Amino acid sequence: MLGDELYVIISRDVNVNHKPTPIIPENQRRMMVAALKPVDFALLGSLTDYFEPISEINPDIVVLGFDQKFQEKELEDALNERGFFPKVIRLSKADSNGEGEFYSSRRIAAEIIERKNKNQEID
Amino acid sequence: MLGDELYVIISRDVNVNHKPTPIIPENQRRMMVAALKPVDFALLGSLTDYFEPISEINPDIVVLGFDQKFQEKELEDALNERGFFPKVIRLSKADSNGEGEFYSSRRIAAEIIERKNKNQEID
Repeated sequence: MLGDELYVIISRDVNVNHKPTPIIPENQRRMMVAALKPVDFALLGSLTDYFEPISEINPDIVVLGFDQKFQEKELEDALNERGFFPKVIRLSKADSNGEGEFYSSRRIAAEIIERKNKNQEID
Repeated sequence: MLGDELYVIISRDVNVNHKPTPIIPENQRRMMVAALKPVDFALLGSLTDYFEPISEINPDIVVLGFDQKFQEKELEDALNERGFFPKVIRLSKADSNGEGEFYSSRRIAAEIIERKNKNQEID
């Protein structure tokens, strides 16, 4: 347990440039995350300024996913410059992923395409 | 609000015969549903007897999804025979589905295949 309240910032569709555009649109992704028991607040990121939601939340801890592109140190420095001094932590891959075969949307998509190639029905 | 506690019975993989086998295995589906705020308990259905979890829970209300294959009246009669007298309700399609384009796994799968056909990357 890293803190008392969990805020999740949801990537905006237009800001996903390092990988393919998500299939599930940003607001649906936000609602899905907001519906999860451990999550107190789920908010869409800013379209223009990564730091905007962090300024609003003023968190004690910022947690990065294992594959997020930011570097902890750079992010910490940039936050410090803006007058914020949260602890920046990166989750390990083991912390981020479930244990099953289908915890990755890439893996689910691969299975759908495999079933399609075998002419299996998909639902 | 139909009741105070929400139990969700998750279909067993081997019992899904009326449509293609789910991609997400039963235990992962159970954990996903259990993680949702409105859900108090998510349990796997019985492999052999549909009525087993209902006997254990002894619910006041049984809610069917809009596309579940049971008929309300038949289910009610079968439950009455076994000494259970819950109200049986069927959700409307509007109650069951979200409003967006991608609230259906069939629709998500179709989009994945469409992207594949266009040689787009999928993640």
